[in-house]
Amino acid sequence: MLSKSAIKYINALKKKKFRQRYDNFIAEGNKIALEILRQPDLKIQSIYATQDWVDLHEKKLHNIKDKLTVINERELKSISSLSTPNKVLLVLEKSKVEIESNLIKNNLSLVLDGIQDPGNLGTLWRIADWFGLEYLFCSENCVDLYNPKVIQASMGAFLRVKAIELNVPTLFSQYPKQSIYGAVLGGRSIYETTLERNGFLLIGNESKGISDALAATITHRIGIPSSGGAESLNAAVATGIICSWFR
Amino acid sequence: MLSKSAIKYINALKKKKFRQRYDNFIAEGNKIALEILRQPDLKIQSIYATQDWVDLHEKKLHNIKDKLTVINERELKSISSLSTPNKVLLVLEKSKVEIESNLIKNNLSLVLDGIQDPGNLGTLWRIADWFGLEYLFCSENCVDLYNPKVIQASMGAFLRVKAIELNVPTLFSQYPKQSIYGAVLGGRSIYETTLERNGFLLIGNESKGISDALAATITHRIGIPSSGGAESLNAAVATGIICSWFR
Repeated sequence: MLSKSAIKYINALKKKKFRQRYDNFIAEGNKIALEILRQPDLKIQSIYATQDWVDLHEKKLHNIKDKLTVINERELKSISSLSTPNKVLLVLEKSKVEIESNLIKNNLSLVLDGIQDPGNLGTLWRIADWFGLEYLFCSENCVDLYNPKVIQASMGAFLRVKAIELNVPTLFSQYPKQSIYGAVLGGRSIYETTLERNGFLLIGNESKGISDALAATITHRIGIPSSGGAESLNAAVATGIICSWFR
Repeated sequence: MLSKSAIKYINALKKKKFRQRYDNFIAEGNKIALEILRQPDLKIQSIYATQDWVDLHEKKLHNIKDKLTVINERELKSISSLSTPNKVLLVLEKSKVEIESNLIKNNLSLVLDGIQDPGNLGTLWRIADWFGLEYLFCSENCVDLYNPKVIQASMGAFLRVKAIELNVPTLFSQYPKQSIYGAVLGGRSIYETTLERNGFLLIGNESKGISDALAATITHRIGIPSSGGAESLNAAVATGIICSWFR
């Protein structure tokens, strides 16, 4: 049985203001829930699931029985952010992201400047996960990393790739020797550029690209040559292509 | 002034059934409208635009004055498929797509099997456009190519890359010598496969992948190796990466 205060709290977490105030966020659905239950480090604040799901996964829920509330489909609908709610919803505690200089110095990190669409941000996180990147850095004008649509689109990447919103120029200034590869229209072809194994890959806003302030910090302007008539590629598609050439 | 019958007709075109019956479809927004006006071949059935837009582009509208209806923002909202309608909406006639064997034999063609999300299909069309592909083929269980969300997400690709829904096994049977590259999880690494300049690149459904019937026709099973924990890549991102390695 779902209390009114729980409904109110979970729905409040759909807003960035409350996610920041309480350091909690939401993840949903059978697949991601099972993945979360396998993570020893992740702190589950509460879990809401339908009886059939609980029956199916009883053993896995042993350690967090006190955090479990069995709810019905109607109740799930009242707290879900999905158009088709899927059995289970979790309230999680945000993990503190430690920034380790060595990981940054020895790897490629993805840096996003003003990505606005939650689906795009989640897909970019998933790409970072696919290519085994350690860090995803977001400028302060990106959509919130803990937006439920971002978490959903990340397909579990949030469990593996450390992500943090920060002041990007400050980050860059701390690694003055690191290359900053900026993806820009008309940049030097990735097919003809020697890409190092480490550095920052900077991706700009979906329509406006990289902001002027950050464009000035780029050390390598790179691009994907077009053979057709399209003006641009979707930010996530372009990032996937560039990552595959960095590999 | 927008007539009731025009509102009814345009809203009917949001459904596949009526797009098929009338061979018409909708495209919207300032940018795409200007691109359409530059296409000599495309048949515009009617154009609905706000007065400020018409004033700005009067010269370009000279030849199609009889097809133009000036409407206000409220009227635009009543026919638009966009959450933020943008000045102008066009009703277009579908072009008949001619299939030229030589173009298929000498180029890479993109073949989609059961792509369900209109945004994904539009993005895939845009990728085909970026890489200068001649044809986009869709299986009969893909979302309709002329769905307004597909057209919108294609970012004008529908003006350049010929696309057609057809029976894919029949298509393949007509080109028995052509390679069929199927993107599958665990396929041979694209980084280590010699990719020809021509062939069919077959991409499957977002969650289920390539259907069994079509999987049997694949001549080269290819994949993008992962270095991280993600189970899969978004279909459009994977297609973009593969196309970049075919180039």
